[in-house]
Amino acid sequence: MTIKIIENGNITTPAGFFAGATTAGIKSKNLVDLGILFSKSLCSAAGLFTTNLIKSASVLHSQKIINVGKAQAIIANSGCANACTGMRGMVDIKEMAKLTAAKCSIQVNKVIVANTGVIGINLPMDKVRKGIKDIDLTAYGGKDFARAIMTTDTFEKEIAVNVKDDNGKYTIAGTAKGAGMIHPDMATMLCFLTTDANINQNFLQVTLKNIVDDTFNMISVDGDTSTNDMIIILSNGLAGNSVISNKNGGTFKEALLEVCKYLAKAVVRDGEGATKLIEVLVECARNKNDARLIARAITSSSLVKTAIYGNDPNWGRILAAAGRSGARIVENKLILYLNNQCVFKQGKPQDFDEEKLRTNMMEESVINIALHVNNGREKATAWGCDLSKEYVTINSAYTT
Amino acid sequence: MTIKIIENGNITTPAGFFAGATTAGIKSKNLVDLGILFSKSLCSAAGLFTTNLIKSASVLHSQKIINVGKAQAIIANSGCANACTGMRGMVDIKEMAKLTAAKCSIQVNKVIVANTGVIGINLPMDKVRKGIKDIDLTAYGGKDFARAIMTTDTFEKEIAVNVKDDNGKYTIAGTAKGAGMIHPDMATMLCFLTTDANINQNFLQVTLKNIVDDTFNMISVDGDTSTNDMIIILSNGLAGNSVISNKNGGTFKEALLEVCKYLAKAVVRDGEGATKLIEVLVECARNKNDARLIARAITSSSLVKTAIYGNDPNWGRILAAAGRSGARIVENKLILYLNNQCVFKQGKPQDFDEEKLRTNMMEESVINIALHVNNGREKATAWGCDLSKEYVTINSAYTT
Repeated sequence: MTIKIIENGNITTPAGFFAGATTAGIKSKNLVDLGILFSKSLCSAAGLFTTNLIKSASVLHSQKIINVGKAQAIIANSGCANACTGMRGMVDIKEMAKLTAAKCSIQVNKVIVANTGVIGINLPMDKVRKGIKDIDLTAYGGKDFARAIMTTDTFEKEIAVNVKDDNGKYTIAGTAKGAGMIHPDMATMLCFLTTDANINQNFLQVTLKNIVDDTFNMISVDGDTSTNDMIIILSNGLAGNSVISNKNGGTFKEALLEVCKYLAKAVVRDGEGATKLIEVLVECARNKNDARLIARAITSSSLVKTAIYGNDPNWGRILAAAGRSGARIVENKLILYLNNQCVFKQGKPQDFDEEKLRTNMMEESVINIALHVNNGREKATAWGCDLSKEYVTINSAYTT
Repeated sequence: MTIKIIENGNITTPAGFFAGATTAGIKSKNLVDLGILFSKSLCSAAGLFTTNLIKSASVLHSQKIINVGKAQAIIANSGCANACTGMRGMVDIKEMAKLTAAKCSIQVNKVIVANTGVIGINLPMDKVRKGIKDIDLTAYGGKDFARAIMTTDTFEKEIAVNVKDDNGKYTIAGTAKGAGMIHPDMATMLCFLTTDANINQNFLQVTLKNIVDDTFNMISVDGDTSTNDMIIILSNGLAGNSVISNKNGGTFKEALLEVCKYLAKAVVRDGEGATKLIEVLVECARNKNDARLIARAITSSSLVKTAIYGNDPNWGRILAAAGRSGARIVENKLILYLNNQCVFKQGKPQDFDEEKLRTNMMEESVINIALHVNNGREKATAWGCDLSKEYVTINSAYTT
């Protein structure tokens, strides 16, 4: 079997998917902010949503569709989260779904809606109505759609892979947005995945859940879980492969994992104000949950994040974060590596060339932290970004 | 009964307490960094310590003394946390206790030791030895001691109150340090309290625990719990009041609460890079734990903190933080006030003059957030500070 990344691939690369976007004027800046993704045939759809108890109208709407498991289009906007907007918010979502259904000539209960942006303001529906009319759906519109969901993101996050295995040939693709309020819990910020593979619906939902746990649920930009988190996969089966299910789904899982890991890492790499990607590997933990807790505590620590921004090998903060993570650790058993330099072992600091490590941190765009807990066999990887002055600048004036 | 704040009062204001400090050279800057607090008679001692599983040698040492409940002196330094330093760290602590005991002519097992500063480096014991010799213990040395425990703090945090009730007259005082790695859990950063009141030992420990839960455990600067957190109260009984216990301890509790609340708020007010104090009141929650969870989630949110730094009434972030707090909330029942302006009610945004609120936020040094959850009767208050560029500057170069 092979999994191959397609150069310049995006969500319209799989067969039968069309997309388009427009500058509707929802964002204050003159940027593309409304997009539609459409499949020419009905899709099996799986999805995960934010666990935040404050949920946007679009999350409530789209959850119902995923519960049924069939969808054919997604309409998404940036600039307005349409969360905390009460009945009016729900009415607006219904109208967005209805207009999209009419445009695509499909049933209204097959349209997923997603919003992202400022919480507590209403959608400018006049602009949305005109925008939906203006959108051209094309087989190469994936990149425009990826742009339409960006808020403080600085680049589009998109990927597509060709997969070939005993089931046949098919394509998986995805796009995601960051770049703040990123600390997903059971779901994530916005992520839309498309595939032309023919897949069993239950298998699709279970596989997505498992993969999200190891990818999007292991990233953190700022510790805040969004009200609008949503990850959706649509599979239209147009590749004509033999149906993929639990028995023969190994390659599909691997390919989807690669796609999701790429997008998750792209989100933190583009974390608000980020200058470095932080990859934390926790090994030999008592159980999987402990490994996750420790890895996420480290990537979420403001003190670890600011130290890395300053290229400062202040490894004590890493152990302090592990110690408050809630996982069981024993100080004497820990071994800590920072960019492959062992800094702590057998309960005491190790001698190392601090100046050399500092220079190394300055040169590398990815900072690797590896912590051997040595009280079990489980491991987990988490990804985060540093905390810069630019993060504060971005977030102290976001609504203005 | 009366509780009266004493102008310029500090930990040596209660009868029989002496303190002093010196510039031992533990800090890289030429600042006072080693202090001793001493009571001329043996004290009942109560304390709480960090719940971080990585604990400094001083925490391990001092926990044992508090378990017995008697102490007569505290030696504390800043500039070196002596955490993650293995056997060597513990040997150093023992020597600090021994030298302090000799200087004060008391038993070595009556000396509490506290350190704060960079994790993972050893104490420069030559400097510590000389420093202990150099310290002069005087009845007015409280302020010097308060200075000796400061790290990134910009002002001393100290208070003393005179209390008069049916039990007699006595004094309670305290000092605390911040200003980073502040997200206490069951205990807090360093805080030392003194009183000349005559108090039942069990009552003292229980009262301290309860008060810390409502004060120090409700503050957050950056979400990180320190390895060296410690709060200690010493009572030497020299005021000669009738013994205070559960039956007659109402005024004592109230006075100690006032002292602890003052110090806790001073710590966040001086949070690293802070320009604003944030006070969050959560009312009508299902239970006390829910009220605490919501209040702390809001004060800990980077997005709320940066919005307040930018005087931005971006209240959606406050509701988003409440929604991910783990507490049970129902969006339609919530009422949210920002600096006394109602911004959200009955499931929808309220009309208000945004420019006026922005100006008001700019003018006030304390930002008040009040959230009525309306599904119960319990309430809690939490305190935090904004997140500024200065926080990042301070923490990206702390060890250097």
